[in-house]
Amino acid sequence: MRVSVPKEPTGRLSDAWRYCVGTGRFELALRRDYQDSLALIQREIGFRYIRGHGLLSDGVGVYRPYEHRGARHVHHSFTYVDQVVDAYLDLGIKPFVELGFMPAELASGDETVFWWAGNITSPRSWPEWADLVRATVSHLVDRYGLDEVRGWPIEVWNEPNLKQFWAGADQDAYHRLYELTAHTVKEVDAELQVGGPALAPGAGDWLVRFADFVASRDVPVDFVSQHAYTTGPAQHVPFGTHQRLAPASRLLEQFAGPGRQLRGTALAGLPVHITEFNSSYRPDNPVHDTAFNAAYLAPVLAAGGDLVDSFSYWTFSDMFEEVGVPTALFHGGFGLLTHRQVKKPTYHLYAFMARMGELLLARGQDHLVTRDATGRVAVLAWAPVDLTEHDAAPAGYTLALSIPVGAPQGTAFALRSSVSDEAGNAWAAWSAMGRPRSPDRRQLDTLRELAEPARRHQALPIADGRVDLDLTLDRHEVTLVEITAVADETPPWWDGSRILGSGNEQED
Amino acid sequence: MRVSVPKEPTGRLSDAWRYCVGTGRFELALRRDYQDSLALIQREIGFRYIRGHGLLSDGVGVYRPYEHRGARHVHHSFTYVDQVVDAYLDLGIKPFVELGFMPAELASGDETVFWWAGNITSPRSWPEWADLVRATVSHLVDRYGLDEVRGWPIEVWNEPNLKQFWAGADQDAYHRLYELTAHTVKEVDAELQVGGPALAPGAGDWLVRFADFVASRDVPVDFVSQHAYTTGPAQHVPFGTHQRLAPASRLLEQFAGPGRQLRGTALAGLPVHITEFNSSYRPDNPVHDTAFNAAYLAPVLAAGGDLVDSFSYWTFSDMFEEVGVPTALFHGGFGLLTHRQVKKPTYHLYAFMARMGELLLARGQDHLVTRDATGRVAVLAWAPVDLTEHDAAPAGYTLALSIPVGAPQGTAFALRSSVSDEAGNAWAAWSAMGRPRSPDRRQLDTLRELAEPARRHQALPIADGRVDLDLTLDRHEVTLVEITAVADETPPWWDGSRILGSGNEQED
Amino acid sequence: MRVSVPKEPTGRLSDAWRYCVGTGRFELALRRDYQDSLALIQREIGFRYIRGHGLLSDGVGVYRPYEHRGARHVHHSFTYVDQVVDAYLDLGIKPFVELGFMPAELASGDETVFWWAGNITSPRSWPEWADLVRATVSHLVDRYGLDEVRGWPIEVWNEPNLKQFWAGADQDAYHRLYELTAHTVKEVDAELQVGGPALAPGAGDWLVRFADFVASRDVPVDFVSQHAYTTGPAQHVPFGTHQRLAPASRLLEQFAGPGRQLRGTALAGLPVHITEFNSSYRPDNPVHDTAFNAAYLAPVLAAGGDLVDSFSYWTFSDMFEEVGVPTALFHGGFGLLTHRQVKKPTYHLYAFMARMGELLLARGQDHLVTRDATGRVAVLAWAPVDLTEHDAAPAGYTLALSIPVGAPQGTAFALRSSVSDEAGNAWAAWSAMGRPRSPDRRQLDTLRELAEPARRHQALPIADGRVDLDLTLDRHEVTLVEITAVADETPPWWDGSRILGSGNEQED
Amino acid sequence: MRVSVPKEPTGRLSDAWRYCVGTGRFELALRRDYQDSLALIQREIGFRYIRGHGLLSDGVGVYRPYEHRGARHVHHSFTYVDQVVDAYLDLGIKPFVELGFMPAELASGDETVFWWAGNITSPRSWPEWADLVRATVSHLVDRYGLDEVRGWPIEVWNEPNLKQFWAGADQDAYHRLYELTAHTVKEVDAELQVGGPALAPGAGDWLVRFADFVASRDVPVDFVSQHAYTTGPAQHVPFGTHQRLAPASRLLEQFAGPGRQLRGTALAGLPVHITEFNSSYRPDNPVHDTAFNAAYLAPVLAAGGDLVDSFSYWTFSDMFEEVGVPTALFHGGFGLLTHRQVKKPTYHLYAFMARMGELLLARGQDHLVTRDATGRVAVLAWAPVDLTEHDAAPAGYTLALSIPVGAPQGTAFALRSSVSDEAGNAWAAWSAMGRPRSPDRRQLDTLRELAEPARRHQALPIADGRVDLDLTLDRHEVTLVEITAVADETPPWWDGSRILGSGNEQED
Repeated sequence: MRVSVPKEPTGRLSDAWRYCVGTGRFELALRRDYQDSLALIQREIGFRYIRGHGLLSDGVGVYRPYEHRGARHVHHSFTYVDQVVDAYLDLGIKPFVELGFMPAELASGDETVFWWAGNITSPRSWPEWADLVRATVSHLVDRYGLDEVRGWPIEVWNEPNLKQFWAGADQDAYHRLYELTAHTVKEVDAELQVGGPALAPGAGDWLVRFADFVASRDVPVDFVSQHAYTTGPAQHVPFGTHQRLAPASRLLEQFAGPGRQLRGTALAGLPVHITEFNSSYRPDNPVHDTAFNAAYLAPVLAAGGDLVDSFSYWTFSDMFEEVGVPTALFHGGFGLLTHRQVKKPTYHLYAFMARMGELLLARGQDHLVTRDATGRVAVLAWAPVDLTEHDAAPAGYTLALSIPVGAPQGTAFALRSSVSDEAGNAWAAWSAMGRPRSPDRRQLDTLRELAEPARRHQALPIADGRVDLDLTLDRHEVTLVEITAVADETPPWWDGSRILGSGNEQED
Repeated sequence: MRVSVPKEPTGRLSDAWRYCVGTGRFELALRRDYQDSLALIQREIGFRYIRGHGLLSDGVGVYRPYEHRGARHVHHSFTYVDQVVDAYLDLGIKPFVELGFMPAELASGDETVFWWAGNITSPRSWPEWADLVRATVSHLVDRYGLDEVRGWPIEVWNEPNLKQFWAGADQDAYHRLYELTAHTVKEVDAELQVGGPALAPGAGDWLVRFADFVASRDVPVDFVSQHAYTTGPAQHVPFGTHQRLAPASRLLEQFAGPGRQLRGTALAGLPVHITEFNSSYRPDNPVHDTAFNAAYLAPVLAAGGDLVDSFSYWTFSDMFEEVGVPTALFHGGFGLLTHRQVKKPTYHLYAFMARMGELLLARGQDHLVTRDATGRVAVLAWAPVDLTEHDAAPAGYTLALSIPVGAPQGTAFALRSSVSDEAGNAWAAWSAMGRPRSPDRRQLDTLRELAEPARRHQALPIADGRVDLDLTLDRHEVTLVEITAVADETPPWWDGSRILGSGNEQED
Repeated sequence: MRVSVPKEPTGRLSDAWRYCVGTGRFELALRRDYQDSLALIQREIGFRYIRGHGLLSDGVGVYRPYEHRGARHVHHSFTYVDQVVDAYLDLGIKPFVELGFMPAELASGDETVFWWAGNITSPRSWPEWADLVRATVSHLVDRYGLDEVRGWPIEVWNEPNLKQFWAGADQDAYHRLYELTAHTVKEVDAELQVGGPALAPGAGDWLVRFADFVASRDVPVDFVSQHAYTTGPAQHVPFGTHQRLAPASRLLEQFAGPGRQLRGTALAGLPVHITEFNSSYRPDNPVHDTAFNAAYLAPVLAAGGDLVDSFSYWTFSDMFEEVGVPTALFHGGFGLLTHRQVKKPTYHLYAFMARMGELLLARGQDHLVTRDATGRVAVLAWAPVDLTEHDAAPAGYTLALSIPVGAPQGTAFALRSSVSDEAGNAWAAWSAMGRPRSPDRRQLDTLRELAEPARRHQALPIADGRVDLDLTLDRHEVTLVEITAVADETPPWWDGSRILGSGNEQED
Repeated sequence: MRVSVPKEPTGRLSDAWRYCVGTGRFELALRRDYQDSLALIQREIGFRYIRGHGLLSDGVGVYRPYEHRGARHVHHSFTYVDQVVDAYLDLGIKPFVELGFMPAELASGDETVFWWAGNITSPRSWPEWADLVRATVSHLVDRYGLDEVRGWPIEVWNEPNLKQFWAGADQDAYHRLYELTAHTVKEVDAELQVGGPALAPGAGDWLVRFADFVASRDVPVDFVSQHAYTTGPAQHVPFGTHQRLAPASRLLEQFAGPGRQLRGTALAGLPVHITEFNSSYRPDNPVHDTAFNAAYLAPVLAAGGDLVDSFSYWTFSDMFEEVGVPTALFHGGFGLLTHRQVKKPTYHLYAFMARMGELLLARGQDHLVTRDATGRVAVLAWAPVDLTEHDAAPAGYTLALSIPVGAPQGTAFALRSSVSDEAGNAWAAWSAMGRPRSPDRRQLDTLRELAEPARRHQALPIADGRVDLDLTLDRHEVTLVEITAVADETPPWWDGSRILGSGNEQED
């Protein structure tokens, strides 16, 4: 049955999907590969904010106690903070500030998270923590201007409901941290935006208790944040992990959670940011490298903006060291890009989204249709992922749309770009190459070539202002079709049959 | 029948195909689009020399007579010469110097060629011509060094056997010009390389008479040059031309001509340079934009090096104004690239050649096979063009090869890149777009995307050190297959069935 | 006597000086050197518009008559127009559109101007002229959008009051041209901005008659334009010109002319653009290369914005061919930059202006003082040029200012940048090098190094919120002093005497 | 007294000064600032090799033990090694490989050096160390080719004679490490170059014992390495250090040490590399930022090549974290460049050296004179540093030379570039700015502008093929004078008095 896409838009396409993207720890942003990747992503996708851990961890060098004339003092030092934030702004992206983790010399304990050892304990001096927050936020305001920094969300800590990220997952201690931090931020300027609690999925009533706490003590909250992932427990192999996966609809349910939980509380109606999401929460699960991941997430990108103000893909690059330095080019990292800028299928899902128009024409379980100001209609379509019957997943999923175009008749030009198990799939190519852990330059070039979407064009006849678009999708295909009515400039003397190679050229 | 490619090379692949490339008139090299195109071409193809007309024409401003204190003097001025040659060397390409045409103020008549009015008459003062040649060559030697300039061929004039290029096609006058010029060049330095006569096809006995002349008067000649084209007379439409075409084998026959004609003369054994060749000699014949042109020329590139020292594609870019400023992006120009760097199918034929190895393994009527130092085997294959039965040209030309690879067993990784009527064919896409004369930026982006070859990869099983390569070619397809034996680094714990999206992932 | 600069601004500094800059003919913008120069200028100066001749001349290829099926037709072709305007917008500059000169095939006569032969006769078909204007303006609107193009002034022809630029300097014919053109532009869109008459200096009553004409016939005029130069008749030497020069105040008088002349007419109060100005109107007068030129024009840049909406330096680059291809790197060209981006002193005058603040604090016969939003005070000072007593021109002109800074006490950091006969003067360096016509690469590097301003820094003590600035200026010096109150971050343990090299380091 | 520089060269200037340069730990090379700095340095100086610590430390992730099916295995992983070495080669520099420190999981103890905790203990498994060395060297050979890697010196460990760098400074343990390592390297390929022992100054008889050891056991040694510094013990202030300093001649004595010590041993005559040198060995001594440092080291660069095969400045960039993340832009770091590419005076000493010619004409206590193939004479001169009487250090040290030039008469063009306490001294400017720890963008621009050498030009009269060069040097000045005989191209009609601004222009 052919789906008729309405001519009149039903609204605007939310850009919650591109509001924010995740990154590895703060000082990785000093790296060239990281910045090259981010530059590419900003050129072809264009995120607005970037969020990651470790701003206050030792590798950034902000908190610097010293002794002078017998007394203890603290320098707050922004050598790397400035280099990173300057680079972000040069690349057209702004920080979504996450305050954490604890500097080792300010920490009350020595529990750490990750290979890079972020300290996850509360401060041993709360006033010094407040000084650190105040100095950091004030410095940003001084350097970048109040107008600019008022636009940067400031989030307090990360996933305090997990013992790995906050010692004991102690909610009372988090409330204390949040309260002090939020007040300190607001002391710098009352219009700065502060929020939390950046919960990992499965937090139960945490958020409600947080709402009660801040309401009871009149603590400032400008936005609420939570994370969303759909994989189960990790089964490890060396340098890798396997997991089971819930349907993608569960991501949308998780997005909807904070709004539902906060209904009736003092925090109802606040902006909700999903400050991390992905299929798997592991940086070593091969799923991230697959076309499956793109097809799985396509409906989430298409619909997530109805539920939240943002949902931030975790993360843009494999330059990420939470479980150590990667031992192979493809290692199941979160990145849209591998090291050295090989594009994964999910990268293209985002790049396709970036070519959608502003006006929403239609949305279904396997498609999203938009139009832009020039009249170009963009169709994003995907082969829905059935997690229960994969072996039967058809390589020939079909989809038929009737698309309104801006001209009553003539032809439309359709450009189709696809990624799938076969096409635009560098991971599959790398597998066929023998999974070289450290590809040489020619192999990298080959991977980059094979990472590009397959592109075709087609002339579609327009009838009554519409074209029929019939798509057959390969296994795990995500495809973008861009349709434009043709303004034919062919001159009257054009005679294709006289062009050499046309098949008729040697007739006299 | 499967063709068995020998394991041992039969020789080295000549690089006569990349020795030189043609260009529009000299001062067009000042343009940014020109230099951007040349930079791209040098990165992906890598020619050694570049040759074009107009070095001494008025637009370059070399010959500058003036009066001072009542006497006439001549400045020789190299403002643009230096800018262009500096740019060439920066781009890794050297000039194949063509001395011509005549400065208007030095000319004996006012006949001109081309929209840009190159004067084609002999000098009104032969000593001033010699001064001009001497000053120009000396300046190049001064600026770039004798060692460098000794490597630059210096060709005297262009196609003097045509009335359009040399007033009256007067051979005696050309001989006088050649003699004076050659001696003048050698006066600057005896090891500079001078040659000619740069004949247009159909020159009859010109070359033999030239050989007789130089032998009889002991005139220096270091190389012989001629041109080759296979189209017939032009049938004009506005801003365009149609022509009939001879088989590509006629190009190879033309290449062989000078050697055959000079046998037994004093010039026998000299290097022969085909300083221009193409299918059509018209800069407004759409054939240059087609995949047909690539398939037509593929056997010429594969075999031409057996016959001559170089054959220079006329020209690398559509930035070319012999019939005026182009009125549409695709206009049948000679270029491998259009303005703004849209790649034509013939561009890819050259880029594919640039990825061939140094060792020649096999060559047939539809294929060329090489190996490089790393063991990579490269197969260039093409659908042969049958000029008499085009309508019957099969979309499914097949080819079967047995290819030796460097490993006795296992698998080989094959990367296939193709252009054809359908794939990697920006001209076809532009036609489907309605042939926009001045595409907007989005259209240019689309054209560039669709101009890339279709790329696929495949794993081929190795048996007895060989893989079977079965190719089916589309209409006018030229394809490159690069084959490498896989060094498998897959770790022992890799279990594809556990990877999400594999089809088995949800089984416990 | 020390001049006390007021603390409170007297207004904002007009940016009429950077509103527009001149350029050589349209298709020169295709050149790489041109675009490299413009990129540099946009980075360090930042003009808003660019204006030059020749948009409709043959080299751009817009007007393209042809025959088809026995009838005459005209294509309007924008191949190069689009390349140039795309490049302009990429470089952050917009076209100030000048409609002219006449395509040869549309011209009523064969009179031309310049080496590059711009046809200066009226159209032989007025309807075809209107078609050409309509097609050109419509194309710009289609490609760049109406909002964008409404911001581009459109000027009709150039200097019609000179016989060199408009056959017979026939004012009635110009009125006819203007009327038809203005109406045609407004037919495309009524809010497009059209104006003229782009008069050369010394036009007498032309402008008043033009005002009368347009008023009497209700012809649209959105702005008025005129040119300003202060040199007298040319005395030629080979490839060069000498002229006498009026004081710079005469430029300001010329700027004031149109407003004064139009007082009481229907055009009173319209924006006035000086669409060309310079000292000499000759592209081969060495004055353009000198520090004298910068010092001469400094008061004009400082004050011109009081009189007109813009005054456009003629021109930004020596890539300019009105008298042919330059025969030497320095040849008296109009450019702020030579070929290959050697900066002339006048370049720095503009670059200094670009570092002035928005708030005007003071202006005198030898200085201009501004402040920006960060509190930085910028002082532009120059050694006034006395045209009558040059030999006596002191190398030691002095100037004493009292400058308000944002701090009551402490010190201020002053950065001083200077060009003069000695410093930042590539022309002087080139003269000392022996005036090489075509400098080699090392010479070009040396010239670029010596073209940079001399820069010094100084710590000035603040007393009562002010610093004393005492300047001694070299011959023809233009200097920029940027003053900022120091926020001292020196730590308490800093002891300069312990730093090696301080002079005390080896004392124990 | 005027020193007469001989016309005939006395030999070639050694390029030992540019053979190698030092760097912070290996993975810092992943950073963009690091690579930007290295790119600038390669463009303006051009080192051949680069050497630093930490290739095998945990941050690079080479040594990766894991368990599989109950057994322990080790992966050797080159993800970052390849990224760094690829980048080096792209930047035109090769690794001087230093093997160290110990991976934590392979270490026999937990002693570490530096903020970044390089483990300095011997391996707990010697066979695994050999595996690690073999895998690393083999990987380099596989990736970069044997011909290439044979040119890379491989040094075993760093400063084993210091307890901070090698547990217990245990020489026997080092000998064991060296022996196993050297044999392992040679097993990969016998022509690879291996050496050591990379001694810190003050090693006493270490080197002789090392020579005895390798001779007695026939251990391969291809070169000998040692370090050189001239400061005494550190006196700490917060984030900084002060030290006393020996005269620069002591550096040359240290260079001469290994050759002297090895005379008569089996290692006599081997290449000697000073793989680190500087004034101070502390990365937080402000001396590195000063002009004093440049003047102090100038005679060392001029003469060091007589004594050793290389001497490697420690280090090229302040991107260096041995004592933690820097807390201020200028912090006494080793770098020739600060973070963000502000050039220090010592950078210019190197950049001046890079402009010296190949032929050595003269060398004195305050000057070095060379000529290059084009005839350009380059004079490097410096104000000698008197460590005992600094307060008396004259700001006006004078020097008089008679310089042979390539022309008997006429004039010579002299370009002089200087750094001193006043000129080309970003550190002095930063001090005057109030020592901002994290300068904003405008401040960085100002620092970069003030970091450029002061440049002047001069015309010197030639008499008898010589010019007199009289130099007056500022405090701690290092100056480069480049002298070229002028080929005068001034045309006969040039009349300077007619050029406007010449002082005569208004006379008729």
